[in-house]
Amino acid sequence: MFSGIQEKLLKLRDNRAFEMLVIAVIIISALEIGAKTYELPAFAIDVTLVLDWFITLFFLFEITVRFWAEPDKKRFFHSGWNIFDTLVVLVSLIPIQDTEMALLARLVRVFRVLRMVSIIPELRILINSLIKALPQLGYVMLLLFIIFYIYAAVGSFLFSPINSELWGNIAISMLTLFRIMTFEDWTDIQYETMDVYPMSWMYYMSFIFFTAFAFLNMVIGIVVNVMEEEHAKVRAEENGKEPTMKELQDEIRELKALLLERK
Amino acid sequence: MFSGIQEKLLKLRDNRAFEMLVIAVIIISALEIGAKTYELPAFAIDVTLVLDWFITLFFLFEITVRFWAEPDKKRFFHSGWNIFDTLVVLVSLIPIQDTEMALLARLVRVFRVLRMVSIIPELRILINSLIKALPQLGYVMLLLFIIFYIYAAVGSFLFSPINSELWGNIAISMLTLFRIMTFEDWTDIQYETMDVYPMSWMYYMSFIFFTAFAFLNMVIGIVVNVMEEEHAKVRAEENGKEPTMKELQDEIRELKALLLERK
Amino acid sequence: MFSGIQEKLLKLRDNRAFEMLVIAVIIISALEIGAKTYELPAFAIDVTLVLDWFITLFFLFEITVRFWAEPDKKRFFHSGWNIFDTLVVLVSLIPIQDTEMALLARLVRVFRVLRMVSIIPELRILINSLIKALPQLGYVMLLLFIIFYIYAAVGSFLFSPINSELWGNIAISMLTLFRIMTFEDWTDIQYETMDVYPMSWMYYMSFIFFTAFAFLNMVIGIVVNVMEEEHAKVRAEENGKEPTMKELQDEIRELKALLLERK
Amino acid sequence: MFSGIQEKLLKLRDNRAFEMLVIAVIIISALEIGAKTYELPAFAIDVTLVLDWFITLFFLFEITVRFWAEPDKKRFFHSGWNIFDTLVVLVSLIPIQDTEMALLARLVRVFRVLRMVSIIPELRILINSLIKALPQLGYVMLLLFIIFYIYAAVGSFLFSPINSELWGNIAISMLTLFRIMTFEDWTDIQYETMDVYPMSWMYYMSFIFFTAFAFLNMVIGIVVNVMEEEHAKVRAEENGKEPTMKELQDEIRELKALLLERK
Repeated sequence: MFSGIQEKLLKLRDNRAFEMLVIAVIIISALEIGAKTYELPAFAIDVTLVLDWFITLFFLFEITVRFWAEPDKKRFFHSGWNIFDTLVVLVSLIPIQDTEMALLARLVRVFRVLRMVSIIPELRILINSLIKALPQLGYVMLLLFIIFYIYAAVGSFLFSPINSELWGNIAISMLTLFRIMTFEDWTDIQYETMDVYPMSWMYYMSFIFFTAFAFLNMVIGIVVNVMEEEHAKVRAEENGKEPTMKELQDEIRELKALLLERK
Repeated sequence: MFSGIQEKLLKLRDNRAFEMLVIAVIIISALEIGAKTYELPAFAIDVTLVLDWFITLFFLFEITVRFWAEPDKKRFFHSGWNIFDTLVVLVSLIPIQDTEMALLARLVRVFRVLRMVSIIPELRILINSLIKALPQLGYVMLLLFIIFYIYAAVGSFLFSPINSELWGNIAISMLTLFRIMTFEDWTDIQYETMDVYPMSWMYYMSFIFFTAFAFLNMVIGIVVNVMEEEHAKVRAEENGKEPTMKELQDEIRELKALLLERK
Repeated sequence: MFSGIQEKLLKLRDNRAFEMLVIAVIIISALEIGAKTYELPAFAIDVTLVLDWFITLFFLFEITVRFWAEPDKKRFFHSGWNIFDTLVVLVSLIPIQDTEMALLARLVRVFRVLRMVSIIPELRILINSLIKALPQLGYVMLLLFIIFYIYAAVGSFLFSPINSELWGNIAISMLTLFRIMTFEDWTDIQYETMDVYPMSWMYYMSFIFFTAFAFLNMVIGIVVNVMEEEHAKVRAEENGKEPTMKELQDEIRELKALLLERK
Repeated sequence: MFSGIQEKLLKLRDNRAFEMLVIAVIIISALEIGAKTYELPAFAIDVTLVLDWFITLFFLFEITVRFWAEPDKKRFFHSGWNIFDTLVVLVSLIPIQDTEMALLARLVRVFRVLRMVSIIPELRILINSLIKALPQLGYVMLLLFIIFYIYAAVGSFLFSPINSELWGNIAISMLTLFRIMTFEDWTDIQYETMDVYPMSWMYYMSFIFFTAFAFLNMVIGIVVNVMEEEHAKVRAEENGKEPTMKELQDEIRELKALLLERK
């Protein structure tokens, strides 16, 4: 009897209409979150309270369906997306009265919109590609961090007496350097320090040069990776249809063997 | 007799000189629109009024020629460019007296300049490539929108008491986030919220990181697509001239068959 | 006797030491131009006057050598670089007393630094590649111009009563749009017009979207062109060394013919 | 006996645990440098003084180990990284009492963080790729410098009476042009000069166009180089496994020779 229910749940989970319903509820929850950022009349606030509970219960129902439908319960939690979905639902269930906590509750509900990513396979692929690219970019990131750290230390030692709000300590300096990297009002910072150290333009120019190079390296790294994967895919497809040079050579050698053996 | 007229109109439509005349009138209409943005003396205003009617009538004549010249009337409206041209001409025909409406009439006439795109085939190809690329980029756009929506909701919940002009509701917040994405005075916004939430730099940095990644994905997607089309074109050309590996293999096998059969 | 001189001049022109001397004089002329932007003591000004005449005479001598050394005098002026060099030298020869003209004389002498480009072949290749790329990019440039023109006309009609300094006429509006394209304080412009037309953010967003797309198209166009040239070069090299698939097929067919004929 | 010590040192140098210890000490030295940018209580300052000496001595020990372990002492200084490490350690050893010099001592110690790059091979590869790319980009850099120099000279001649802080001499002008290249408040500079020279927008637009082109060239140059290296690598790999077209042709010709000889 038990496996009968599981089969029905599996059918429900893979049902196209059910999937559409889930997406619809996620969109409604997104719209509700958006609406809450406006000042609402009293009755609308009541509606959102009811809606909140309905959405929470629906998500609880959906995650339960997916969990029961899974034949191997352990495998369910092997997928990062399932863990994410479960966490979002469980945290929404915690009853919150405290006003301080009310803000936190709202923020947690915002993450429900991310369930859009976990339910649409194409978006999941995009996010997975980001996660896959991260370790490849690890060393460039580390290099970028070392550049930031050294420049922040130097900047803090030299410029903190000039402007402690921008260069007060190494953490503030790194924030200032990130600002310089985005070219955001960086010349004002430069002119200020050039009054004391006239050669300090070299500090800014070299920093911009190094970070631009590191960033370029990163982008090119991604592009080359993507291209290689594309080529590998194309080659794999061709290998299915077309013989390789090696195979041609083998067939020619068989011919030669035939001729020689008859000699 | 009727088909005789159609034949003559077809000749007129495909006439190089007629095409040049149409382009000339479009350029004149563009110059006239440009002139209208300056303060003009009274007689010049009279000239533009006459010119306006001449251009409208000429465009009406040209679209009529193209419609009559088309053998299959239904196919005429299958082309988006024809529908666009007809709409621009028809809207210009509406007589407008109201001063409020005068501005609208001017704006509609600006779109006549877009007829430059519909008449020059090379520009039409560029625009078509944009329209073709849009659905391919659809999912990246959706991901970008979800990122914007989530950050706007969080930003609105947290920062609206700090600065309601920038974070008042989810719509205003999305506009502010677009501004942050273009690095336009974003540090002022950051410093303002960091006074209340010292850790809010993480909000801005992560947002810049995610949008930069999504944008990069978009660009790489386009580049890879363009490259693949180029490769496909090159391969198609080569296939015409050169045999494939498979064809070579088939010929070698025929040779083997010949040798074996004679054995 | 005359051709004897020509031969000697040809040797002089192609002499490595002479070429180095020319580059040295160009660098000296560049340094002199740089020095003139500082306030100089009286004796230094006298030095620059003497130096000016020496450089002008040396350049006159060098261009004469190159002209005489050229066996075919007509071909000399077929090269744009030679025409450019001659013009720069000739204009420097015009004696200028007028103070108003003194500025112009200085500006003309600045172009002597560009002779660095005409004398170093690698830089000449870079500039030639720019000039070659321009017509290919022509239609994208035209499209970009049409987008600018339409948005400038609309912007001028709608926003000129709000801020005539930014949107006064179509020329000023195009300058403002170029500023918006570089993301330079564009949100201030946007907030100003949003007070009157709350939906005007659509104007800015769509403009940024279209220009970004056009620019992207341009960049991709260049990249694809460069790649294709590289591939064509690689293929041309390979064709010299390696047989094509077609040649292989022909040889296999000869084999088959041999076998069949002996049957 | 002496070579016995060398062998032991070689083992120590290549010991994974010892390498980890060196990285740990570098990280501690980086954290110490970061801590120094904050205002520290008296006892913490004492700790940093002790830590400083410990780190200096440890680095001295480590560089001695690596020097003694090297069988060929001359080869040790052929590596730029070894010279860099030795310099950093030696400079840290100089005792500094002077307060003026204290700042310099701090700055030198910051470079210890760069030892992270010299000890992690992957980061060393990244930096080497930067150094390798520099000469290839040399001519584009030179062109960019000539563009900057010419525009700075023209800008200084024309605009120095308008704003001597931005255009006072050629050096200041080049700094201002770098600022314009990063689009940092460039329109303010433009509006200021347009009051005197209304056509000066052409100066800014052409400068932005040329530098953008030069930069694009640079990026494309890097991308094409990287791609070519990738292709060369792929081809080299394939050559190991797969026969070339030439080899196939040779085998087919051997076949033909066999057939003809038997005729």
